[in-house]
Amino acid sequence: MQLLEERILRDGKVLPGNVLKVGGFLNHLIDNELLDEIGKEISALFSGVEITKILTIEASGIAIACAAAHYLHAPVLFAKKDRTNNINTDCYSAEVKSYTHGNVAHVIVSKQYLNAGDKVLIVDDFLAHGEAIKGLVSLIDQAGAELVGCAIAIEKGFQGGGDALRAQGIRVESLAIIESMSDTGLTFKH
Amino acid sequence: MQLLEERILRDGKVLPGNVLKVGGFLNHLIDNELLDEIGKEISALFSGVEITKILTIEASGIAIACAAAHYLHAPVLFAKKDRTNNINTDCYSAEVKSYTHGNVAHVIVSKQYLNAGDKVLIVDDFLAHGEAIKGLVSLIDQAGAELVGCAIAIEKGFQGGGDALRAQGIRVESLAIIESMSDTGLTFKH
Repeated sequence: MQLLEERILRDGKVLPGNVLKVGGFLNHLIDNELLDEIGKEISALFSGVEITKILTIEASGIAIACAAAHYLHAPVLFAKKDRTNNINTDCYSAEVKSYTHGNVAHVIVSKQYLNAGDKVLIVDDFLAHGEAIKGLVSLIDQAGAELVGCAIAIEKGFQGGGDALRAQGIRVESLAIIESMSDTGLTFKH
Repeated sequence: MQLLEERILRDGKVLPGNVLKVGGFLNHLIDNELLDEIGKEISALFSGVEITKILTIEASGIAIACAAAHYLHAPVLFAKKDRTNNINTDCYSAEVKSYTHGNVAHVIVSKQYLNAGDKVLIVDDFLAHGEAIKGLVSLIDQAGAELVGCAIAIEKGFQGGGDALRAQGIRVESLAIIESMSDTGLTFKH
């Protein structure tokens, strides 16, 4: 998606540790026009696919999921990060390892909102090692629902998570795939 | 807003401690059609008002803020809950007391994204005692920006936060104001 790639080149900031900061337009301050175009693009990619729920993860996935929902006409379910680690029998729960924060978190969704028979599109802002997406896939599996694919704004292709999911037969559509990045520049895969 | 009031009556659940659960349509599973109507309604209420930024707070405010942004054509800035309590000189920070969780959290926004000259609409899913809104107002004050008003999906009118803000001269528009609620029923203020 050219508009997103141009914006990453203009306003993204590469920081040490393979961190790409996009807080100026995507996940802290959110450009409403760009967000709307991202929603349209995701909708176009999954046009004709039956989707009964869009699953994302708080907090930064919510905006993109809602933009996609506007055009796909499907409800959004956002997985919550569980900070209590209490056992909750009303929820499906999955572990998510964070390479950025160096810890393991749990993500949960209420069992009543994710069901066998649901056809689920996963939406998120970033895909790097794929740990968050694996957690969401596990929630879908636990519910006996069907995963129809993943729509991602920015995939860090060089970290391999997207290709590992594709190798499992999962449809992964990323609007911008970063092939390499460093202090001196950033290239996209097309 | 009749559509929202009807939905609260149909699918909202009153729990002990004045808790109203709306996870089935507003803040866990999000009904995309209702969300879109909420965005339109907020846009209509603030039609003709200059707004340069919509400020909300993660996680459940983000969907509503993005729906409003779609129709108001303004970017969304979401305040983050800071769990580290590190001093961060790049951020404005405010304390938010939670009656639900019985603790004090800090909310932060990056200084570079909230500026003097910004005309800010606060958007959130709930307004009860008004603590979260007071925190957001403090962030706006620290930035030297101007608050143009607050748009809230559900105000628990009986907890007084909305009227306290109105008494300070702040424009507060709530799409549904709950006058009273208990196990046996729920009434709205019109």
